[in-house]
Amino acid sequence: MKQILILGAGRSSVYLIEYLIEQAPVQNWQITIADLQTQPLQSRLNPFTFVSLLNINIHNQEHLNNQVQLADLVISLLPAAFHLIIAQTCLELGKHFLTASYVTPELKALHEAAQQKNLLFLMETGLDPGIDHMSAVAAIAKIRQQGGELYSFKSYTGGLVAPESDTNPWHYKISWNPRNVVLAGQSTARFLQDNSPKYIPYSQLFRRTEKIEVAGLGLMEGYANRDSLSYQEAYGLESISTLIRGTLRWPGFCGAWRQLINLGLTDDSYSLPLSGNSTFFQWLESYLPASYQNVPLLNRLADYLDLPENSAEIQAIQYLGLLEEEPIGLVNATPARVLEQRLIQKLPLQAEDKDLVVMQHEFEFMLANKQRRLRSALVVVGENATYTAMAKTVGLPLGLAASLLLQNKITLTGVQIPTHPEIYEPILKGLEKLGINFTEQEEVL
Amino acid sequence: MKQILILGAGRSSVYLIEYLIEQAPVQNWQITIADLQTQPLQSRLNPFTFVSLLNINIHNQEHLNNQVQLADLVISLLPAAFHLIIAQTCLELGKHFLTASYVTPELKALHEAAQQKNLLFLMETGLDPGIDHMSAVAAIAKIRQQGGELYSFKSYTGGLVAPESDTNPWHYKISWNPRNVVLAGQSTARFLQDNSPKYIPYSQLFRRTEKIEVAGLGLMEGYANRDSLSYQEAYGLESISTLIRGTLRWPGFCGAWRQLINLGLTDDSYSLPLSGNSTFFQWLESYLPASYQNVPLLNRLADYLDLPENSAEIQAIQYLGLLEEEPIGLVNATPARVLEQRLIQKLPLQAEDKDLVVMQHEFEFMLANKQRRLRSALVVVGENATYTAMAKTVGLPLGLAASLLLQNKITLTGVQIPTHPEIYEPILKGLEKLGINFTEQEEVL
Repeated sequence: MKQILILGAGRSSVYLIEYLIEQAPVQNWQITIADLQTQPLQSRLNPFTFVSLLNINIHNQEHLNNQVQLADLVISLLPAAFHLIIAQTCLELGKHFLTASYVTPELKALHEAAQQKNLLFLMETGLDPGIDHMSAVAAIAKIRQQGGELYSFKSYTGGLVAPESDTNPWHYKISWNPRNVVLAGQSTARFLQDNSPKYIPYSQLFRRTEKIEVAGLGLMEGYANRDSLSYQEAYGLESISTLIRGTLRWPGFCGAWRQLINLGLTDDSYSLPLSGNSTFFQWLESYLPASYQNVPLLNRLADYLDLPENSAEIQAIQYLGLLEEEPIGLVNATPARVLEQRLIQKLPLQAEDKDLVVMQHEFEFMLANKQRRLRSALVVVGENATYTAMAKTVGLPLGLAASLLLQNKITLTGVQIPTHPEIYEPILKGLEKLGINFTEQEEVL
Repeated sequence: MKQILILGAGRSSVYLIEYLIEQAPVQNWQITIADLQTQPLQSRLNPFTFVSLLNINIHNQEHLNNQVQLADLVISLLPAAFHLIIAQTCLELGKHFLTASYVTPELKALHEAAQQKNLLFLMETGLDPGIDHMSAVAAIAKIRQQGGELYSFKSYTGGLVAPESDTNPWHYKISWNPRNVVLAGQSTARFLQDNSPKYIPYSQLFRRTEKIEVAGLGLMEGYANRDSLSYQEAYGLESISTLIRGTLRWPGFCGAWRQLINLGLTDDSYSLPLSGNSTFFQWLESYLPASYQNVPLLNRLADYLDLPENSAEIQAIQYLGLLEEEPIGLVNATPARVLEQRLIQKLPLQAEDKDLVVMQHEFEFMLANKQRRLRSALVVVGENATYTAMAKTVGLPLGLAASLLLQNKITLTGVQIPTHPEIYEPILKGLEKLGINFTEQEEVL
């Protein structure tokens, strides 16, 4: 019998837990789900004798040690900040570790020690990062097997709202960590275009979007990620001419978001001197030049941003309630935190709303003296605010990876991401069976 | 006999050294001037028997200790990064310390230890910071003595080029550390206007300038400093409604500089992958969207910035040679470093050029039921590229402070800035005698 310890049972865990519960009786697994608060899960999970719930404070090293000691595999859905301490504990106690979070330099530093202990620390195995790596590397291998010579790779992913649940001028609802939405792009974006390095500073990032046509969904907009080149080597694309990775949004979002950046509302570098009475109106006003003629805030805002008062951008800002004399209700918060709270309040996924995950790779390559383009797209629509496309596409790769690992079907050890065939081939096949599959379109240019 | 150790003999030291040399025979001082390279000073300073020159590597703690041990007072004109180690050495060896640099939290932390040893670490005693503190606090005290109630204080300072030496479209020449010019304003500016906190993000800072009329010079432009409130308490302005501190530029500079920021050229957060062949043309192009129709770079630039090709801003960027196929000649440099090098090459103060220092305070206060405005302005024109107004206004306050200190005319101890009457009164008087004086204009509003 194998023991699985799942750390973190938040909104992203539902598909992972259900997948493991389904497999557990067959595979003879015992599952422990640990979080600060597991009460809400009790009614749903109590029927399963092979599942235990556990309240854990991850800061209590002894408590963490005890639980990790009992496990064969630790899967973490906790915030990324916890993963170094969890990985160190796994290393010390000789346990495998699995997560959807990024490999940081500190985690990467554990690679050799993990190898020596024959342990696999498999990271970046969710959606993005995760399915993006696996599907890209699989497609690249296929193109090369055919003799194709890649010269361009563009890849965009978005966690969005499905059109039927789109009810606001942002065309966006929160299906994932809203803090990441607020802080997105704050360092200069870097990519490669026609063999030249390209840079886009934060203030221009949401202006310099690319139009992305996704089959069945129509035109979307993509903005470049922080460093598109970070996986150039891992993907084997050292000699490629164009390499862009980015984030997808419905048209309208980026233009309005750009105005929040222009105003300065996404800044996370200083605390605002907020009192209990401070309002969103006052907050917004503190980013506008002073006015001495009682001009309404709406007009001052439109004038400052050089936009018509009835423009989509101004309407989007109004929709967030930033022009309202409503108390902010936070103290010592950064602008980014105030804005994050407002997104949570104004752009929630309602119980019956469907979210949407879209990932599209666009490869260009020479084959038999012809330029060809391959578009490979994944579109997943959520069922509701609990069974989201986001939780599904993050959780199922983790579940499949856990299954492979516990069946000793992975020989790799050390700190890894799923760019190796022995990992991505069975996971992509498993995902396909679970309805998560890419559709491909190829054409001669 | 008292020993003075001057650390750093760069371009800013000329007036300080000459002032101390003039005083030395009368006051019975011995002066040691230490820098990495003191060779260039030999011919000029050898005639003075009470001056010694010394090559020192500040990183050699033993060497530093030996020199500090011999001194009664250490004056540093070295870059600010050295000042913690110098101050710690002064503390350990029981020596006074004097500099024009900012008090950092690490330096502030030495306050009590310095007090216990009866030492004065007098910092921020140059021009800005320095004369700004002294003149502001003196004027505030005078207004209050008359019964005036201050409600607004705006203060702007600039190190510029004199109109007669202004020969470029930036209306600027380098009279001080060019790195500070490049990095200026990179964190959000914060000030107080009509009792409301105001914030200006970096991308808007050089757009939201204020027009400043300086008597005899005409209209200038000011942009807000990083944190205008940092001296609110030190100046005794806790209950003021408007408080802005900023930097002065000739009209045209800010508009053009804003475009460098828009492009992303002032970024200091990443290294460029420069080779020996990389040109300024290629560098600038990497910040522009790709072009597929052989449009000339000038037109692409103007189009991207939404400016006419013959606009002052585009001409200013052209003047820096950023559109030229000329090798950059740097490797592993950040954008900010590349730009800094270009400023040094293209905007130097020529041997006979005159620089200009301008400082203007604008106080508004109620007195006898009337709103009054007091403008207090300092205008200093340099003689040439060696005897600059900048070196004069930074060096002479330090020289006067050194003189006071060595004559035991200051009773204060600990880490201080010159906002105390026993420091600023004699220094301001001394400066006036040396021709550095403010002219005042007062009017009823």
